Amino acid sequence: MDGQEAVCLPKLSRVAVCGGTHGNELSGVYLVKEMMKSRKEEDNESGSQPVLVLSNPRATKKCLRYTEVDLNRCFSRDALNSPLLDIAPYEVLRSRELDALLGPKGSPYSVDLVCDLHNTTSNMGLCFIAYSDSDWISMHIFKHLKRCMPDIPMRYIHFDLPQDESYSLDSVGKHGFAMEIGPQPHGVVRSNIYTTMKCGVQHMLDWIHLFNSGRVFEGGFVDVFTLVKHLDYPRDCSTLDIIAAIHPQLQDRDFCLLNPGDPLFQTFSGETMPYNGTESLHPFFINECAYYEKGIALSLSRLRRVKIPAVCATSEQHAVIVT
Amino acid sequence: MDGQEAVCLPKLSRVAVCGGTHGNELSGVYLVKEMMKSRKEEDNESGSQPVLVLSNPRATKKCLRYTEVDLNRCFSRDALNSPLLDIAPYEVLRSRELDALLGPKGSPYSVDLVCDLHNTTSNMGLCFIAYSDSDWISMHIFKHLKRCMPDIPMRYIHFDLPQDESYSLDSVGKHGFAMEIGPQPHGVVRSNIYTTMKCGVQHMLDWIHLFNSGRVFEGGFVDVFTLVKHLDYPRDCSTLDIIAAIHPQLQDRDFCLLNPGDPLFQTFSGETMPYNGTESLHPFFINECAYYEKGIALSLSRLRRVKIPAVCATSEQHAVIVT
Repeated sequence: MDGQEAVCLPKLSRVAVCGGTHGNELSGVYLVKEMMKSRKEEDNESGSQPVLVLSNPRATKKCLRYTEVDLNRCFSRDALNSPLLDIAPYEVLRSRELDALLGPKGSPYSVDLVCDLHNTTSNMGLCFIAYSDSDWISMHIFKHLKRCMPDIPMRYIHFDLPQDESYSLDSVGKHGFAMEIGPQPHGVVRSNIYTTMKCGVQHMLDWIHLFNSGRVFEGGFVDVFTLVKHLDYPRDCSTLDIIAAIHPQLQDRDFCLLNPGDPLFQTFSGETMPYNGTESLHPFFINECAYYEKGIALSLSRLRRVKIPAVCATSEQHAVIVT
Repeated sequence: MDGQEAVCLPKLSRVAVCGGTHGNELSGVYLVKEMMKSRKEEDNESGSQPVLVLSNPRATKKCLRYTEVDLNRCFSRDALNSPLLDIAPYEVLRSRELDALLGPKGSPYSVDLVCDLHNTTSNMGLCFIAYSDSDWISMHIFKHLKRCMPDIPMRYIHFDLPQDESYSLDSVGKHGFAMEIGPQPHGVVRSNIYTTMKCGVQHMLDWIHLFNSGRVFEGGFVDVFTLVKHLDYPRDCSTLDIIAAIHPQLQDRDFCLLNPGDPLFQTFSGETMPYNGTESLHPFFINECAYYEKGIALSLSRLRRVKIPAVCATSEQHAVIVT
């Protein structure tokens, strides 16, 4: 250990891999189906295998993001605990089922890790999206994938929300993140994106196996992009129609620094609208299809380097630090 | 004229530019809205302006391809003339309205030209899709755009169907074609694709203006890709789920020659499936989002060069050949 402190964390005995939380994000849908099929063929039901979940089968069947409300916004503490109305949308009912299967969120019974598979139309490569910048498990898995897949652009995105307010399926686990890969149009599966996701999941499961087997993982650094704010499209005051698209010089340049004065939008009549913020920030989710309705043209983040400690597994239920 | 025969064709007095025939193909939606807005601002209602149509407002509002049935399959002679049921889908009703506005199809009252704007997730550049390889008007406009926009990959696709069976909105005009531009995810507008469409439409209108003003356009050659057949994805016999995606070596290579034995699909477990046809053909609509449900993974075409004559405008109602 070279004198480095190692944080000993509980083993990851129960891991869930979820696809189709958004039913038109097809890499995850087909990857989870393929994993289910392989397992059936191998007739291998060992306890070390992940729980495989098709999160929103109804939306998946229709190849829609969701049928009534966005399932991946239904997992905040309040949303999960509010009284159920008779006319509750399908996704609200489904979120309770998933919380029962993988949670209950915040309880000792929840699975150890949820990896929720997503696609984006944005040119984001492979991203982890997590609510913590000090979840050493998620960050070590990220570091492992970066090492194993050096040709894939990879970033760690941090949504800085308290656990109660965290709203996505991956927040149900003790650890969790969305594995978000793009660019891929929704409703389409591209071999290269599918294969990247498949490799990413396999390397994650490999890491978990090594971790549970007692391997000590050295510390290091992770570059973390913390969400600062969202920007909406310019819109017509009366119709609320968008009146501009992402500027061609910004399109596909997710994570490249956006400086005050840089081209941001191009109106449909051809004018350039510059970024009028005061701070240089890193954009992501540039021109994501599903966010038009949410009023998000892109998100902006601040980058910083986070030091992560060495980690190893313990059979204890709580973290222990050893030297 | 250098002794070249010129075909004199009736002037194009009434031209329609349609967007949103598929409500989630956004370049056409926003281009038609922008053209409507400019016209309003200029307060310019001269007769030489095109008719502007938002074809499927209900699907556009929901950002869906269609609400009940695919509007762009509702314009065959049979479909337009079959008795209307009380429970007719919205798009069937809408197709009658559009036929009344721009047609009736096949009658002397139909508009002279329909340009219907579409987007595809396939890497197809700018394509004209037409039912004729001897519609000199459409082919001359195509040739004009190719000359004016040399940086844009441009192809002329021919669906070899008799007029009665032609099923798309553009078939309602005396001349007509779909202007299909990609790659762009459905539900997304990308500045570069929008701008290409805007330029394409402007050059088309310029050509029509010159043609109507008496300019003689020299003959030449157009490379025509005639549809031969569609290929479906490999599917699971019982669930009908696809079990493979377009092979990464074929993805985005629309119009590049596909030879027998070339990689065609990659299964979700990683195996390559080759093209087992006997003839080398040119693929297009490779991995188009909307065609998963239609059972089309890609279409195959045969390429040949078509000679087109010089053309000029006449005030007569029918074509005349002059030397």
